[in-house]
Amino acid sequence: MKSLVEIQEYVAKLFESENFKKQPLALYEPFQYTMDLGGKRLRPLLTLIAADMFGAELDDAANVAMAVELAHNFTLLHDDIMDESPLRRGKPTVYQKFGIDKAILSGDVMYSKAYEYLLQSDTKKIPALVKTMTSVLVQVCEGQAYDMNFEHRSDITQKEYITMISLKTAVLLAACLKMGAIVAGADKKSMNALSEFGLYLGIAFQLQDDILDCWSNLAEFGKVIGSDIADNKKTILFFSAVEKADEKDMQELVTWYLEKTTDFQKKKQRVIELFEKYNVKDDVEQMIGAYTIQAIDALDKMDIEDEKKENLRTLAKQLINRNK
Amino acid sequence: MKSLVEIQEYVAKLFESENFKKQPLALYEPFQYTMDLGGKRLRPLLTLIAADMFGAELDDAANVAMAVELAHNFTLLHDDIMDESPLRRGKPTVYQKFGIDKAILSGDVMYSKAYEYLLQSDTKKIPALVKTMTSVLVQVCEGQAYDMNFEHRSDITQKEYITMISLKTAVLLAACLKMGAIVAGADKKSMNALSEFGLYLGIAFQLQDDILDCWSNLAEFGKVIGSDIADNKKTILFFSAVEKADEKDMQELVTWYLEKTTDFQKKKQRVIELFEKYNVKDDVEQMIGAYTIQAIDALDKMDIEDEKKENLRTLAKQLINRNK
Repeated sequence: MKSLVEIQEYVAKLFESENFKKQPLALYEPFQYTMDLGGKRLRPLLTLIAADMFGAELDDAANVAMAVELAHNFTLLHDDIMDESPLRRGKPTVYQKFGIDKAILSGDVMYSKAYEYLLQSDTKKIPALVKTMTSVLVQVCEGQAYDMNFEHRSDITQKEYITMISLKTAVLLAACLKMGAIVAGADKKSMNALSEFGLYLGIAFQLQDDILDCWSNLAEFGKVIGSDIADNKKTILFFSAVEKADEKDMQELVTWYLEKTTDFQKKKQRVIELFEKYNVKDDVEQMIGAYTIQAIDALDKMDIEDEKKENLRTLAKQLINRNK
Repeated sequence: MKSLVEIQEYVAKLFESENFKKQPLALYEPFQYTMDLGGKRLRPLLTLIAADMFGAELDDAANVAMAVELAHNFTLLHDDIMDESPLRRGKPTVYQKFGIDKAILSGDVMYSKAYEYLLQSDTKKIPALVKTMTSVLVQVCEGQAYDMNFEHRSDITQKEYITMISLKTAVLLAACLKMGAIVAGADKKSMNALSEFGLYLGIAFQLQDDILDCWSNLAEFGKVIGSDIADNKKTILFFSAVEKADEKDMQELVTWYLEKTTDFQKKKQRVIELFEKYNVKDDVEQMIGAYTIQAIDALDKMDIEDEKKENLRTLAKQLINRNK
């Protein structure tokens, strides 16, 4: 078994050594740009940790690790258009730099390339891998559709919000783990427990992301701080605050999120004041804690030596305590 | 073996009986709208003809037929955004009706759904089917990228244009046939010959499409006539005319295609006059004839009874002589 650091280094090298730039450049230059933006590479890391846990060589799961990162980046390319996000990892988003057309098209080819990487697997494992990736990508689109729908509503319950982020974010993390386990030929029971871990961890991860948008700093986070507020993007913080606020504050919050204000500083300050008045950060941190415990509990259901679960435990702690 | 008409009826029923509309509607309403637009269903027809030729039941290839049509429609949804096309099959395009965001996202989910249909196949055939579809979708994106690049150039040779339409259109037709043959377990040699037939037919088909944009009528064609000219979309007609025209006419043509004129009638009339002055319609019709012969020749390379090739011969004739 490899250490977490060894696997992280393997992931970094894997992506550094791959060259995506070829003809036609209109297609593959935005592709390479996206991959050069880097990022946490969390999804391939999960795939490789899972493969390693169940005894596979990292090299045998490298193509799957590549596939999940490409599939993830495909969704980011398109989401950034829909969300009109100016920055990703501190740099202009693809549609900002290359235009909407190229962002659509290079996202499309990236998704096909993800399948091409998957197809490098052992033939017997291809159907299960393709099935897992495909079904999760359908769910990610559904999650994004719910997310867009929430823009027009203020009465979303925490439960509805959790369903949305499960689809949009958490199921992919679960699938990355499962696909690593498929490569390693893990048993069904462990695979299900692993997926459960990934799902709960993914929810906790996204809730943490929502918090970091408000209480973080640009240099570490790589996005504009308070950009969710500026973009009227309703996260768990907004919905929790609306639920707890008195009528007057609730109306004020809703009004801020209707406004396309240019005085972003004032808007951000006032919205965060309201979030703090109703302690929503504490509430969400409690939720994160609860989901993290559920994730760790899921690990206990797996029939493998406890020490083999250590990498996932360590990673879970790192993700929840991160500040970027 | 089924008759062409029987297979066509099977295709029509297949798509009528399928319901794609479910929650979330933001995602699946544009999806259903797209499928309701209908169209020739040429790609599933090719898949089913090929499957039938090599002895498979139509039911055994129905899921693959569905997959290829969804994959094709996914590319249309996104192409219509990039090409700013207002109409498809006589109705508003998805991005016009539902907005760019929903057109991107429902296109994305449509592509995943195409894989879901493929995955309903016999497990042993899944790797080959997924590989064929994936590699062709990469090529379609590359073709679209070249096509967009041609917008900024007037010096494209016929050969370059043929390469572009091969990638953007013809390889998918070839793949549809190949996938039907995979389902039926056809031999490699026949499969290659079939792909060759599809490639040449696809080129002839697209060249015919370029002609129909100029010399057709709205009611039958379902698109705005001369819309390629209005949109400054350079087709084989433009590049052939530029190649043959004298300096003055060449400059005039290039200038028309730079202009975002509102006097579309005048532009269309003058451009078509120039096309006719240089007989480019005749040239392209000759090319279509030559590619059709190459397609038919490819059929001769297949080791099956001649009568089994009849459906493809008939279809080829229909496609080349169509007026919509």
